[in-house]
Amino acid sequence: MDEVKIIEIKKSVFADNDADAEALRADLKARGVYLLNLMSSPGSGKTTTLIQTLLRLEGRLRVAVMEADIDSDVDAVKIREATGVPSIQLHTGGMCHLDAEMTRQGLDNVALQDVDLVVLENVGNLVCPAEFDTGAVRNAMILSVPEGEDKPLKYPLMFSVCDLVLINKMDVLPYFDFDLEKCREYIRMRNPRAKVLPICARTGEGVDAFADWLVEEVYNWKHA
Amino acid sequence: MDEVKIIEIKKSVFADNDADAEALRADLKARGVYLLNLMSSPGSGKTTTLIQTLLRLEGRLRVAVMEADIDSDVDAVKIREATGVPSIQLHTGGMCHLDAEMTRQGLDNVALQDVDLVVLENVGNLVCPAEFDTGAVRNAMILSVPEGEDKPLKYPLMFSVCDLVLINKMDVLPYFDFDLEKCREYIRMRNPRAKVLPICARTGEGVDAFADWLVEEVYNWKHA
Repeated sequence: MDEVKIIEIKKSVFADNDADAEALRADLKARGVYLLNLMSSPGSGKTTTLIQTLLRLEGRLRVAVMEADIDSDVDAVKIREATGVPSIQLHTGGMCHLDAEMTRQGLDNVALQDVDLVVLENVGNLVCPAEFDTGAVRNAMILSVPEGEDKPLKYPLMFSVCDLVLINKMDVLPYFDFDLEKCREYIRMRNPRAKVLPICARTGEGVDAFADWLVEEVYNWKHA
Repeated sequence: MDEVKIIEIKKSVFADNDADAEALRADLKARGVYLLNLMSSPGSGKTTTLIQTLLRLEGRLRVAVMEADIDSDVDAVKIREATGVPSIQLHTGGMCHLDAEMTRQGLDNVALQDVDLVVLENVGNLVCPAEFDTGAVRNAMILSVPEGEDKPLKYPLMFSVCDLVLINKMDVLPYFDFDLEKCREYIRMRNPRAKVLPICARTGEGVDAFADWLVEEVYNWKHA
């Protein structure tokens, strides 16, 4: 198998990230490409969730993946080997987030004419990525059961900016003190409009619902 | 019980964090106070580990805790209620890390003449906190089993700057694909000198060893 393409992202020189993000979204809209910004803590299962989701999207959506990481290309390799979906690795050079200009640098390396959906797997971090609009149509995040239901209290901005919260690793619920109803309540406090989907990437529970959500989102984006 | 003291940390105005950190360490040395900077992802169990450790340090070390968080005071309250140890909450105002000057702002609110050890629970984040010397004598981090053994590959700086890595939630090892030997190997790649301690804050496994390490560290710092 070929090497995964690794893009070394440069720090943005533009000051107005919100304007950059709007311009990027308009550009993607014109091309009929939907960009999802997927965020989470390290180790919440972003890559495994993505693999299971991509397998369910085969034949329904044409997808590409951009994996942002400080270092290493383990995620992009894993995704391509497991799904065959074109994946590139973005190295942030120590930076803790991606902004719109950095996202555009990544997209310049994606064959946008061949895809309906690009998933940006952001740097594993509940703080900084929430502060920067990447130009994505929607923000989604994964909170995993072992992290605890109190995370919306401690990382309020992340939960306020997300349209969808996937609660992953539901299979280990019996082994952790995690109160799903309290978690839903805390998420509602931060963002009453956020959709909450309990899933388990390992067993596949709930992943169909996430795939269906993506198909509907992309359809609406293309036809709105 | 009294309200927990909440300190709103201001952004540092000083440019040279390394010099600030050295000055703070010298100041702490002169006062005979040991500062531990404890880092981890969100939800790795920092607060629970700290509670179990503080209970084991009673009568051996005089301790104070500074809980850094974007928002909320749940951790400082939990620690004080469970252990009686004086705990203050540092609000970072959205910032993703603490530097030496911000740490000093917190320490100004601790009765340093009455303590041997101050534990700074840094913001839950594997990226930014690793970039800033807080003035601590040592950096420690918690990696929890559900996060996966590949984290040293993906967050290299965090593992290079830590003198001690606690591997927490060992009780759920049977339910996760986590290879402890591989994890040790990846940590060694980043930092051959780092001490690795598998623990479980919930069952108490390994926590005595962490408490003993702290007692020895504080003794050496005071008498070196």
